[in-house]
Amino acid sequence: MGNNTLGELFKITSFGESHGKIIGVVIDGVPAGLKADIEFIQKELNMRRPGQYSLSSQRIEFDKVEVLSGVFNKFTTGAPLCLIIKNEAFDSRDYEKNKDILRPSHSDYSAFKKFGGYADYRGSGRFSGRITASYVMAGAIAKQLLQRYNIFIFAFTKSIGTIIDSQIYKIDALQSLISRREQSPVRSLNSALSKQMEEQIKKVNDIQDSIGGQIKCIVSNFPPGIGGPVFNGIESNLSKAIFSIPSIKGIEFGKGFKATEMKGSEHNDPWILVNESIKTSKNDSGGIIGGISTGMPIEFTVAVKPTASIGITQKTVNIKSMKEDTIKIEGKHDPCIVPRAVVVVEAMTAIVLVDYLLKEGKIPSVLSA
Amino acid sequence: MGNNTLGELFKITSFGESHGKIIGVVIDGVPAGLKADIEFIQKELNMRRPGQYSLSSQRIEFDKVEVLSGVFNKFTTGAPLCLIIKNEAFDSRDYEKNKDILRPSHSDYSAFKKFGGYADYRGSGRFSGRITASYVMAGAIAKQLLQRYNIFIFAFTKSIGTIIDSQIYKIDALQSLISRREQSPVRSLNSALSKQMEEQIKKVNDIQDSIGGQIKCIVSNFPPGIGGPVFNGIESNLSKAIFSIPSIKGIEFGKGFKATEMKGSEHNDPWILVNESIKTSKNDSGGIIGGISTGMPIEFTVAVKPTASIGITQKTVNIKSMKEDTIKIEGKHDPCIVPRAVVVVEAMTAIVLVDYLLKEGKIPSVLSA
Amino acid sequence: MGNNTLGELFKITSFGESHGKIIGVVIDGVPAGLKADIEFIQKELNMRRPGQYSLSSQRIEFDKVEVLSGVFNKFTTGAPLCLIIKNEAFDSRDYEKNKDILRPSHSDYSAFKKFGGYADYRGSGRFSGRITASYVMAGAIAKQLLQRYNIFIFAFTKSIGTIIDSQIYKIDALQSLISRREQSPVRSLNSALSKQMEEQIKKVNDIQDSIGGQIKCIVSNFPPGIGGPVFNGIESNLSKAIFSIPSIKGIEFGKGFKATEMKGSEHNDPWILVNESIKTSKNDSGGIIGGISTGMPIEFTVAVKPTASIGITQKTVNIKSMKEDTIKIEGKHDPCIVPRAVVVVEAMTAIVLVDYLLKEGKIPSVLSA
Amino acid sequence: MGNNTLGELFKITSFGESHGKIIGVVIDGVPAGLKADIEFIQKELNMRRPGQYSLSSQRIEFDKVEVLSGVFNKFTTGAPLCLIIKNEAFDSRDYEKNKDILRPSHSDYSAFKKFGGYADYRGSGRFSGRITASYVMAGAIAKQLLQRYNIFIFAFTKSIGTIIDSQIYKIDALQSLISRREQSPVRSLNSALSKQMEEQIKKVNDIQDSIGGQIKCIVSNFPPGIGGPVFNGIESNLSKAIFSIPSIKGIEFGKGFKATEMKGSEHNDPWILVNESIKTSKNDSGGIIGGISTGMPIEFTVAVKPTASIGITQKTVNIKSMKEDTIKIEGKHDPCIVPRAVVVVEAMTAIVLVDYLLKEGKIPSVLSA
Repeated sequence: MGNNTLGELFKITSFGESHGKIIGVVIDGVPAGLKADIEFIQKELNMRRPGQYSLSSQRIEFDKVEVLSGVFNKFTTGAPLCLIIKNEAFDSRDYEKNKDILRPSHSDYSAFKKFGGYADYRGSGRFSGRITASYVMAGAIAKQLLQRYNIFIFAFTKSIGTIIDSQIYKIDALQSLISRREQSPVRSLNSALSKQMEEQIKKVNDIQDSIGGQIKCIVSNFPPGIGGPVFNGIESNLSKAIFSIPSIKGIEFGKGFKATEMKGSEHNDPWILVNESIKTSKNDSGGIIGGISTGMPIEFTVAVKPTASIGITQKTVNIKSMKEDTIKIEGKHDPCIVPRAVVVVEAMTAIVLVDYLLKEGKIPSVLSA
Repeated sequence: MGNNTLGELFKITSFGESHGKIIGVVIDGVPAGLKADIEFIQKELNMRRPGQYSLSSQRIEFDKVEVLSGVFNKFTTGAPLCLIIKNEAFDSRDYEKNKDILRPSHSDYSAFKKFGGYADYRGSGRFSGRITASYVMAGAIAKQLLQRYNIFIFAFTKSIGTIIDSQIYKIDALQSLISRREQSPVRSLNSALSKQMEEQIKKVNDIQDSIGGQIKCIVSNFPPGIGGPVFNGIESNLSKAIFSIPSIKGIEFGKGFKATEMKGSEHNDPWILVNESIKTSKNDSGGIIGGISTGMPIEFTVAVKPTASIGITQKTVNIKSMKEDTIKIEGKHDPCIVPRAVVVVEAMTAIVLVDYLLKEGKIPSVLSA
Repeated sequence: MGNNTLGELFKITSFGESHGKIIGVVIDGVPAGLKADIEFIQKELNMRRPGQYSLSSQRIEFDKVEVLSGVFNKFTTGAPLCLIIKNEAFDSRDYEKNKDILRPSHSDYSAFKKFGGYADYRGSGRFSGRITASYVMAGAIAKQLLQRYNIFIFAFTKSIGTIIDSQIYKIDALQSLISRREQSPVRSLNSALSKQMEEQIKKVNDIQDSIGGQIKCIVSNFPPGIGGPVFNGIESNLSKAIFSIPSIKGIEFGKGFKATEMKGSEHNDPWILVNESIKTSKNDSGGIIGGISTGMPIEFTVAVKPTASIGITQKTVNIKSMKEDTIKIEGKHDPCIVPRAVVVVEAMTAIVLVDYLLKEGKIPSVLSA
Repeated sequence: MGNNTLGELFKITSFGESHGKIIGVVIDGVPAGLKADIEFIQKELNMRRPGQYSLSSQRIEFDKVEVLSGVFNKFTTGAPLCLIIKNEAFDSRDYEKNKDILRPSHSDYSAFKKFGGYADYRGSGRFSGRITASYVMAGAIAKQLLQRYNIFIFAFTKSIGTIIDSQIYKIDALQSLISRREQSPVRSLNSALSKQMEEQIKKVNDIQDSIGGQIKCIVSNFPPGIGGPVFNGIESNLSKAIFSIPSIKGIEFGKGFKATEMKGSEHNDPWILVNESIKTSKNDSGGIIGGISTGMPIEFTVAVKPTASIGITQKTVNIKSMKEDTIKIEGKHDPCIVPRAVVVVEAMTAIVLVDYLLKEGKIPSVLSA
């Protein structure tokens, strides 16, 4: 059975299929009195939309957000918001043709075992990356709430294939980082690397292949003392949310896997006083210790696998005839989803953090004007 | 506020503190009719216990499991099980002395911000690794359920510091793997590497430092078609559970972070027929596609940071005087928790997977004799 | 904050406002392979619609169900269903005019304290009886699932004001009961009482007043052994769901409040053998003992208060001027909502019972053809 | 499967069996900094204990509360509290003897269908009224929290059989009500009726029969604006919690079932100004409109069925031989559980209301000293 609702007090419910009528989300637990900035939601959706850089999926998606409920006289009412985008301009013929031939590293087989052949296979249906538009809409509402508390979430492309941006960015310089990211079609913060990353994507695209990459996400100004040990840890809830994005195969906080080769004396973050407030002199813990925020930036990195849809002929099995077969996936597919996933990572992060703030009573149920 | 309950139909509730009276767990949703193998629970607890190898924490923990409820005439009744171990033989004096001096990369500061100074600081209280004994007890019950379906969970030490075991183990040879792991005090599967890992730990211990490492976990025989897209993915729920273990800072499934440098044509797992059943010729997806099990082994790796408690003098802050200070943590501390965490990773995995099987109706509410 | 999601494995999320764009529901956890009978959903919605009897609210509601997601090639896919009806033909002017004058026994004041004046007040917004259309749509899907297991839910009007139908109906005669209910505009099973009830409603309507009543609900063929003690009782979950219907002020199972005057020797239901299966010779327990179904019909009665909207001038307070005032509620209002609530009670019952069957593994995640 | 956890932010998990080792509860979500008044918990437990009046069950229960976790230096820490009482001095022989003979209106049959014969039948195991000791312990913690906000919960015996106390009590006179209740062994507020009620119980006891009754519960000083429409209503969550008490078969809020015979003009509560604050001139709504508190006292009444255990010979079935049989239940059983259930009703009410206040951010996660 499904599980399409996430969160405790800030609760989102995703619905819709890639080639169905709509993609939608119900957002429950939004405090009353938030001025709903629809333009901002649209801007966020646009960041997820293909066509940002020349090689991304050429399916035209207008993705215009519609508010079905929860907003009255421009403000949220405390009732659940329902936001949708319509699905348009898609072509399901190729999916029809190949529906019995399992696409390698796609969900065709696992979905068949789970849903017994009833799943909507067109455009990967409920497994499509397009479902993340529902996350982005909910994330946009969450971000608007966080902005009232000066909490900023910022993600960017850390690597495409072997082109890796190892620089440590200071989140304080957020404004300049944002504009740099906007100028990069691959959401990189470094213009030289951005070109190399584009080149990398173009190269795999030319051979009808695909490539993976990493996204780094930083949260600034998140207050200390939020989260908890045991099952209330920020790493626990963030990772759960992040893995709900298709194609994510790894997550690490702070130094992450590098910490496994470090000594305690290297990895430990010394406490210091900065203007009479307690900080750490470095942040290898990624802003979370014992599952609780330390007040330092929350930092994590996620691993995105290469797009499973490639034009190269692959070995596989026809599930109807139960014979081995080959498949060559037609149509334009995004050779690298990393740039488009950047805003999705931000969205899931915002959703999780708002839920924490509500549970801790840090956001009231009616916002002050 | 806390959140000490995990799971939907198989629900565990952890309680107790490191230096309090007990560590305990309530396990709800255990089907009636399971012959409760108390010896097995004890054996699992023993694997977590310190003192397995010469350098681990010398606090003597007897950790004898007691069943307070849920078992009648040797079988589970369908009522919640409560299992506890008593805390004995600990010395809290050092914690008293240093309670205002923040230990670097320990939860002292974040806990202070969260719990306002009321938290039980003795032995790190609720943040202690000792809390994972509650996970292990619940995991032992979950494993007994999984064994009825021939599902095996097996974890081992993949690396200690820079000593890395890169071999691909075939889970089919499980019996020999188990005995190899038992012979290794650091839970390695390779006797030569095991010695090097022990050496590595001894070396950091000699200089009162600590070291991290990686644990690999493999689940064999888990049926295909379990899990789901969106918020029901196996990666989502496993990662949430795994990050509830103290000191875990990363998790990756299948090729994980390595997948970010791969092309689709390399990473995609081709479908093949093996004895008329559908498999993949390799398993870079780690047994999960679209959040759903493929029937291939579920494989993931977790990153464990170096123990935060070290004997070396560290810079820090006294939170009472609000002055910078230093701390030298006394007492015997485990220089590397990786070996002891192996069984904890297995336990959390078992707990999550049983919950899935119950939600899918694969385990009945009354077991057949 | 809100809480608009109900259920554990069969999970419904309600959204929309009385005078907003739509009323909608997301239904998660519907097994794949259910042939979605849209006509049946429409028929259920029609039972809730006003205009069934001459005196009910004359707002014209077309309430044509639209399926936005979750159905493909006429079958459910395992993905969440989103069903909506559009709001049309309403007039919000009267609500605008009176928005600061608290309507007695309406939610105006409690909503103001909760949502700080941001709630959509038009047509009572989220508090409107119209919201129950979302329950009815979800209930129609639940009923289709239950029908596969021959489980029938049947509710009817037990009383309107002091006109009370005290007959004990045998659920075995379901077909004849259904047709009797269809012939009665007030959903009574007794044609003589039906006329009196209509008369009663007409009488209060003539004086611009309103009246309450009782609804009795019976579930036949529900298997024994479903539910549980402590927080898993059927009474617990049914009552929670039933009280989410506006205007319900009481619920009793079996003999209910009458049981308080009975002796154990009178109230106890003796076990008997009927065709070698265990039954009780009477059913004062209402089919539930220890929170678990006994296999006898589940029977309960709910109390519906008189409609709060009446045309008679009432004393009240203007919340803006903070002065005492009077209000005369204009427009056509339903003088008795009991008949329309009958199908809503059935819907909530179906939703709760399907959730139980899923949790017990009695309904598979893919239905057989 | 079971479901032994209740609540969202204030979460209680009940465990233990009537004749097992202990009865216990884990209370999660208790803010840090509450001075844990153990004597108060004990006093509450004593109110539930038998032996308060001469005819109640003569099983001696010491029920001494023990704190296993969550309290340090006399204050709650923010970690989950585990409270237990030991089971002592019981005699299970009679249960052994009759274990195949279904006791009428007891859970023997439904439990058998649910748990397949594995349930602990001794003393009704998990279905025993003794389980409510776990509710009372958790309720005592909840009450201590509510007291900080001057919220008082007060329940009393409204009727035993046909002896009914119809007086309307003003909760303002709480102190005098408490002492009157203490003086009454049946928890009545009227000394004349108290005698009649005792007499009534004595009479049924003399003939080895039992009797039911009603409990009324009033909450004073609960702030307006808490709760919500749809699935967040106070009636919904209170009723769910109250029906988790064994033997409860009905609940009504405000006028409840009487409202079904009333006109809107009678039932509607006019808004008035009292010292510039908004109140209603009467409280037929029972302090809740639209699922949200109005600031008037929350009032509800519950129906308690007569004790199922009676000494009179009853017809029944032997489930092993599958033959009709008779049973005469031996031992001393409580002929009326109403007086002992009074404190249990209060406890469940307190637990639900604290959860609401936490969800609304009205109680902080760390209490001020």
